[in-house]
Amino acid sequence: VNPKQIAAEHAVTLIKDGMSVGLGSGTTAAYAIPAVARRIETEGLRLRCVATSKASAHLAHANGIKLSSWDSIETLDITIDGADEIDPEFRIIKGGGGALVREKLVATVTADEVIVVHSAKLTEALGAFPVPVAVVPFGWPSTRRRLAEKFGCEVSIRRDASGDAFTSDDGMHILDMAFGAPLPRLDTIENEIRSVVGVVEVGLFFGLCHHLVVAHSDGSVEVKAAPK
Amino acid sequence: VNPKQIAAEHAVTLIKDGMSVGLGSGTTAAYAIPAVARRIETEGLRLRCVATSKASAHLAHANGIKLSSWDSIETLDITIDGADEIDPEFRIIKGGGGALVREKLVATVTADEVIVVHSAKLTEALGAFPVPVAVVPFGWPSTRRRLAEKFGCEVSIRRDASGDAFTSDDGMHILDMAFGAPLPRLDTIENEIRSVVGVVEVGLFFGLCHHLVVAHSDGSVEVKAAPK
Repeated sequence: VNPKQIAAEHAVTLIKDGMSVGLGSGTTAAYAIPAVARRIETEGLRLRCVATSKASAHLAHANGIKLSSWDSIETLDITIDGADEIDPEFRIIKGGGGALVREKLVATVTADEVIVVHSAKLTEALGAFPVPVAVVPFGWPSTRRRLAEKFGCEVSIRRDASGDAFTSDDGMHILDMAFGAPLPRLDTIENEIRSVVGVVEVGLFFGLCHHLVVAHSDGSVEVKAAPK
Repeated sequence: VNPKQIAAEHAVTLIKDGMSVGLGSGTTAAYAIPAVARRIETEGLRLRCVATSKASAHLAHANGIKLSSWDSIETLDITIDGADEIDPEFRIIKGGGGALVREKLVATVTADEVIVVHSAKLTEALGAFPVPVAVVPFGWPSTRRRLAEKFGCEVSIRRDASGDAFTSDDGMHILDMAFGAPLPRLDTIENEIRSVVGVVEVGLFFGLCHHLVVAHSDGSVEVKAAPK
């Protein structure tokens, strides 16, 4: 069993009967979703679950989890998701999987956002991982150019396996902004990027993570609460 | 001939041979696009035209105007578009037609944004017209609620003729925010709204209009340059 799986399964033990649950995307979800299904099956948990991507919704269905319509849910008790980079203040870069728009909407209304990462994702200063930015496809070359000029960093369009511009579940393209570490102006950078016309969402999740579950390579798991 | 048509046709006289031209949406475009086509036909103007909506693209094609791909264009010399409300500082509320995402992307890269309005659209203080906000469809009820709570105003989902949530050319829904006049905190309100997760674009066009063409009910036309 790999460390990430151990950590994801530990995160799933935080779910309690009667909760509304957000199911994240990516490798964390690939381990967490079957574990949620097993708890429903073996413990008879009654949960209301929503998924942050079509892929996760598909995996949930495949594991026999009935999903609620996101539109019917005002808030969530807990969400289990992954991250691409996280600093000591629990500031996160997220969106390597391209699902940042839905992941952020879900995180925004979640009382306990639980982020599961391998310890390799912990960093003293964000920015080595490029910041994913979801943009409107219409005129994306102009949006890319304006971002590159405004921030003076390399900005590249994400492509899928066939070489086309990647399109998210919400029909957006993703631009990856290679700031390098340390990311500048942490207090304002998210809104600086958001203020560029054409930008839909920024893969910076600041103040949205309540608990961090760290998978260490030796198989141990560490749970940390967000610093006050 | 109605005043709006006279004004739209006047705006079209500002186009010069060799220019790249943005064709706006709505009633302004309904008059301006045929006028552009007539100038191409009679004067042999060589223009590179792009459209801010599928409807305008359709109208352009119907009038024999060949459109360039938006992705091939970095900047535009001139764009002719309409507005829903405009104040003495040329601050604009726009998006009654639902095309605000593309209209704003186009305006952002336009050297001379020419806005055509009937004089009834002039106002001393913005806000009587609801501010249109394009949002990601996923979770829109949550986005609507968070906007209403944050700004303390009525926020309604725009619907189409069949009663479904209106969907824009870019696949967005539109929330109309009924601030009432005067709109508060003009210096920051646009970014305040943009910072809400789920928001794609705000129908506030500040600092984007270079020339205003006003149609008066008596058929006269007034052209004003933006205040410095």
